[in-house]
Amino acid sequence: MTTRLELNPLLEPIRPQMEQMEALLQGQLAGLEEPLRTMVGHVLASGKRLRLALIILTGELFARPSAPFQQLGVAVEMLHTATLIHDDIVDQSPLRRGSQTLHTIWPLREAVLVGDHLHAQAAALVAELNRPAILNVFAKTLCTICAGEIRQTFVNEGRLRNRDEYTRSIEAKTASLVIGAVEMAGLLAEASKTQLAALRNFGREFGLAFQIADDVLDFIGTEAQLGKPPGSDLQQGLMTLPTLCYLEQTENDTAVSAVLSGKRDDEHIQSAIEAVRTSGAIDAALAQGRAHAQRSQRALEALPDNHARQILHALADYVVTRNR
Amino acid sequence: MTTRLELNPLLEPIRPQMEQMEALLQGQLAGLEEPLRTMVGHVLASGKRLRLALIILTGELFARPSAPFQQLGVAVEMLHTATLIHDDIVDQSPLRRGSQTLHTIWPLREAVLVGDHLHAQAAALVAELNRPAILNVFAKTLCTICAGEIRQTFVNEGRLRNRDEYTRSIEAKTASLVIGAVEMAGLLAEASKTQLAALRNFGREFGLAFQIADDVLDFIGTEAQLGKPPGSDLQQGLMTLPTLCYLEQTENDTAVSAVLSGKRDDEHIQSAIEAVRTSGAIDAALAQGRAHAQRSQRALEALPDNHARQILHALADYVVTRNR
Repeated sequence: MTTRLELNPLLEPIRPQMEQMEALLQGQLAGLEEPLRTMVGHVLASGKRLRLALIILTGELFARPSAPFQQLGVAVEMLHTATLIHDDIVDQSPLRRGSQTLHTIWPLREAVLVGDHLHAQAAALVAELNRPAILNVFAKTLCTICAGEIRQTFVNEGRLRNRDEYTRSIEAKTASLVIGAVEMAGLLAEASKTQLAALRNFGREFGLAFQIADDVLDFIGTEAQLGKPPGSDLQQGLMTLPTLCYLEQTENDTAVSAVLSGKRDDEHIQSAIEAVRTSGAIDAALAQGRAHAQRSQRALEALPDNHARQILHALADYVVTRNR
Repeated sequence: MTTRLELNPLLEPIRPQMEQMEALLQGQLAGLEEPLRTMVGHVLASGKRLRLALIILTGELFARPSAPFQQLGVAVEMLHTATLIHDDIVDQSPLRRGSQTLHTIWPLREAVLVGDHLHAQAAALVAELNRPAILNVFAKTLCTICAGEIRQTFVNEGRLRNRDEYTRSIEAKTASLVIGAVEMAGLLAEASKTQLAALRNFGREFGLAFQIADDVLDFIGTEAQLGKPPGSDLQQGLMTLPTLCYLEQTENDTAVSAVLSGKRDDEHIQSAIEAVRTSGAIDAALAQGRAHAQRSQRALEALPDNHARQILHALADYVVTRNR
């Protein structure tokens, strides 16, 4: 087992830039009228700001002044938050990052509009960067995320059948925004075509590793670590990598199949979680996560070698060993 | 009473451009995967494409090649459609333009995502125009629309108190996208600052006139003309200009107050519609609509004088005399 890494010490070298970016984010918030400000503030309050760190680090990789990267970071965080708000509506999730989701506090209609507003604010911030190529990536990324979500809600009825379908699904849902974030940062840094390809590759593998770790945590994390009860994917009938690995390995499964066939009371969920946890599925899933993390590290080799690259390298280890 | 104008003969001179734009729109649609294509196609099928005509005409006003204006038009139609989909969710409307609304055919969650996808596609099309200033207007317009909608859902509980609040509300809801459309077209045509200000002014007054006519039609139109039962604003507890004018003029109202206090069965709605119809409120509201249309025509005087300007002038008459 790899040693568990903590996020904050890793990001210590870019703390000033992260704090400036946070101030920029709060400034955007302060410009909103009520009740929009409270609603957006509620959702933006938490979050690891991991995508933001990737954007700042891409700027540092190319030794560029930090300000436009901070603006891009704020835009990406807003876009990300917008997709989370609509996601939670789509998945009917009651909790996110330990807080009630927006649509459970305010009427659903307002939650839809707050998501739209964040989309628009994010696009406005990117437009201000005056670089159409960046906005192009921004808009296409949003298209990919939405198309993926729509596919997921329909596929769900027939269920993910194998790891390939799973990878395609999390690539659209999670990796695409990481790819978009580092690609936009690369464009802002005027990276070469080869470097942009390396950044996209890094983003893809990093994003896949991140989501696999998330999906594993949903089985092995505690409610305190997750900010929501474990097993919420299964609860929603969502098949993720640990479940797929478990079903690959288990010939006479009853526990998970019961949940997938609709028995979603606490007792059945607990038995299913226990079955997956005690099988080799968690290790198998984590092995796939680590393989993606390692591929993301290899992608870094085509990029300038400096302190930022070292942090990106360490972050790839972090995402697959984190416990929240 | 002004003579009623028909839309199609007015737009005959720009029919080729309108048809090319329609083909472009269908091409965008064809590029989507199912079920997204069917869902988006359902919503895009109807619509007057009036904003598109304004964009094409702005290009003609400055004698510019039509292609980029067609692309901008498609983007604006997609953005407009996205806002309608989310609007119908927010207002829980069952019908739009004579068809079932998206969220009544497909699950609400998918309707939310289709709206997001259209936002993103629209932004991608605008980004491809390679003009950050245009994208800036695009994003800010979307912010204004969302902020206005959010305000409306909250104000609604306290209700619009006067014509100023009404104007502010329809400026955000409807006029802002018309302003945005002609401003973006003006930027694309490289209009001067004075001309841009005139275009924005035209868009504002045209948009206000358009929405007032819409709100009047909700009282005097037939179900066949409206594509939904008349009185649907009142049904939703939404106060529009005819209601405000009626309440200004009527000292001892009971019919409308009953609906506004929550009695929304067919009988109460019918009595309220009848009360507003037979008062002077419709004429008073239409007079305000015509005043805005005339102001939009005066704004045109600062713009190049050619066939396009004449059509824009005639369109302003059309919007306040149309019956659907």
